[in-house]
Amino acid sequence: MSEDKITALKTSIIETFGTPCAVVDMDIVERNIAKAQTLCDDAGMANRPHIKTHKSPLLAAMQIDAGAKGITCQKLGEAEVMADAGITDIIIATNLLGAARSGKLAALQKRLPLKVCADSTVTLNEYAQAASNAGRALDVLIECDTGMQRAGVETPAEALVLATAIKANSMLNFAGLLFYPSLDSWPRTQVFYDELKAGLTEIGLKPKIISTGGTPNFAHIGKLNGATEHRAGTCIFNDRMMQAAGFASIDDCALQVYTSVVSRGAENRGILDAGSKTLTNDSGGLDGYGQILEHPTARIHKFSEEHGFLDLSKCNAKPQVGDIVRVIPNHVCVAVNMVDQLVAVRGGEIEQIIPVAARGKLV
Amino acid sequence: MSEDKITALKTSIIETFGTPCAVVDMDIVERNIAKAQTLCDDAGMANRPHIKTHKSPLLAAMQIDAGAKGITCQKLGEAEVMADAGITDIIIATNLLGAARSGKLAALQKRLPLKVCADSTVTLNEYAQAASNAGRALDVLIECDTGMQRAGVETPAEALVLATAIKANSMLNFAGLLFYPSLDSWPRTQVFYDELKAGLTEIGLKPKIISTGGTPNFAHIGKLNGATEHRAGTCIFNDRMMQAAGFASIDDCALQVYTSVVSRGAENRGILDAGSKTLTNDSGGLDGYGQILEHPTARIHKFSEEHGFLDLSKCNAKPQVGDIVRVIPNHVCVAVNMVDQLVAVRGGEIEQIIPVAARGKLV
Repeated sequence: MSEDKITALKTSIIETFGTPCAVVDMDIVERNIAKAQTLCDDAGMANRPHIKTHKSPLLAAMQIDAGAKGITCQKLGEAEVMADAGITDIIIATNLLGAARSGKLAALQKRLPLKVCADSTVTLNEYAQAASNAGRALDVLIECDTGMQRAGVETPAEALVLATAIKANSMLNFAGLLFYPSLDSWPRTQVFYDELKAGLTEIGLKPKIISTGGTPNFAHIGKLNGATEHRAGTCIFNDRMMQAAGFASIDDCALQVYTSVVSRGAENRGILDAGSKTLTNDSGGLDGYGQILEHPTARIHKFSEEHGFLDLSKCNAKPQVGDIVRVIPNHVCVAVNMVDQLVAVRGGEIEQIIPVAARGKLV
Repeated sequence: MSEDKITALKTSIIETFGTPCAVVDMDIVERNIAKAQTLCDDAGMANRPHIKTHKSPLLAAMQIDAGAKGITCQKLGEAEVMADAGITDIIIATNLLGAARSGKLAALQKRLPLKVCADSTVTLNEYAQAASNAGRALDVLIECDTGMQRAGVETPAEALVLATAIKANSMLNFAGLLFYPSLDSWPRTQVFYDELKAGLTEIGLKPKIISTGGTPNFAHIGKLNGATEHRAGTCIFNDRMMQAAGFASIDDCALQVYTSVVSRGAENRGILDAGSKTLTNDSGGLDGYGQILEHPTARIHKFSEEHGFLDLSKCNAKPQVGDIVRVIPNHVCVAVNMVDQLVAVRGGEIEQIIPVAARGKLV
């Protein structure tokens, strides 16, 4: 975009919405959606994007229109919002104890058949109860941990215990396995899967879905022999972490927070009107909090709730009070989660408002 | 509360709302509100609580009923919500460039006379334009920095330049000064104020409001000779930071996040269903993210978006999958900002839902 167009868009954004404002470039969004789909297609795997990143039925529909088989949610409440929008093929990729015990899982399962995940018999028992209340058996994937120390059983033997329990329960269907291999644990994941598959065959079970996940893991997509689908979230927008991971360039980052420089207390200090309640304190392990397009050498070194604190000591042309700057967040998934809406732009023009409809669905 | 009552309340919370769930104990809230009021009364100062912590008109009304003169907001959007609820005496304690340029400041100023803050002539010019559009002059406080390196002019001379500009503009009224002294900068703040006061007198101005701020600064309330009011936010709920600051005990912490243990991958690992999208990555400079009442030696050592990762190596009685634990956040203001509602309880019973009505008001 030309400098003039950028300046005009900034004016348009602040005069229409004020600052801070989360803005997404739809040309980049569409390119990112197509790229993820192509990566899955080329690997012969289904694409099941994780909607935790955007929490928007409109963007989920764009992903499905581009070829995605279904979606992944992290919360029952996210799945409710997506189901309301007519999406029917949903994996909820977490142990849903609060959702099960509150009756919300049964209520949604009554409306449409969900695919849920578990790594313990406690969760399986809650699922069986919810399925019974819904009057429809639940499809369950077993979450397996192969080194990331997230949720998931640590051994094929533990997974087999759960698979056996699922098989024994008429309200549960064994649907498959959920993996999140770390970048260097693919060989280990293969060993885990092969051993587990043999055990499953022995008890007469065959996983329909073998899911891998993560945007950085696109680097290894298809390397798990047997994997059927991939779930990635961040790639729809990308961020500073995805640049650091080598997945995206700065031009692939679709979301920018437009923020005003509101104070310049001293030569090397400045303050933005975007703080931890906008960009969050999730550094993603990077230095500083966000990348300022207009001032790459300015460093957001800390936040208060509504202010971002700039260290301008390495800046030659320093921003002035009243300037609007665009910030690519370190971690876009948590930044989107702070706002009720995204402003979609295309070619320097405001196109539409995208509600972050599933934001705040904690359960 | 007895163990039985706590257990019953946990069951009630998860069966009604699910987990995670932000719960506030109204007996503690009322005690905290009364304490802040008493501290201000005893210092002979007005109390103007900062509502950024709770973002709730209901709780703001309780503070006013207890004796608060008015409220402090950090965002124009927060002030809109509070004005809608009938609150009329409002300071917005920040440079409002985005709100001014979007027309939102003028629209609210048309409805009721606001008090706003500035630390630059750029902001003053925007304020004058907004006041002109509203057809009503704006009361402006000058924000002064005495060592915290937040927003604010760094010298009395700079403040005088702004005061002179305010005096010269018929759409702006000089309303006073806003300070946020650090715990050790009260003497320096006094010198700053005394010098500035002399300069103001010379140009015929007298500040009506001299505001100090911060919950930890209650330790020094009234020490600034001339201060007229105090604005503190966190003290209505308190948190782990306020315990670390010596202001509150664990029994003064009114807000707890009820969260389920959803996974126990290994002997010393556990996972909560509250992650950075619930408790946030704002550590407040403390070790770990939150204080688990049931397991004081369990450490939340990191978050993913929806999971809190437990290090249980120092725990004798380790939590089990399905347990519900209560977490006091490190920083309660940012945790409240993640939820759309708080569940108010009293004596172990659910009393009401408190909407976090001003959450998400970024501008």
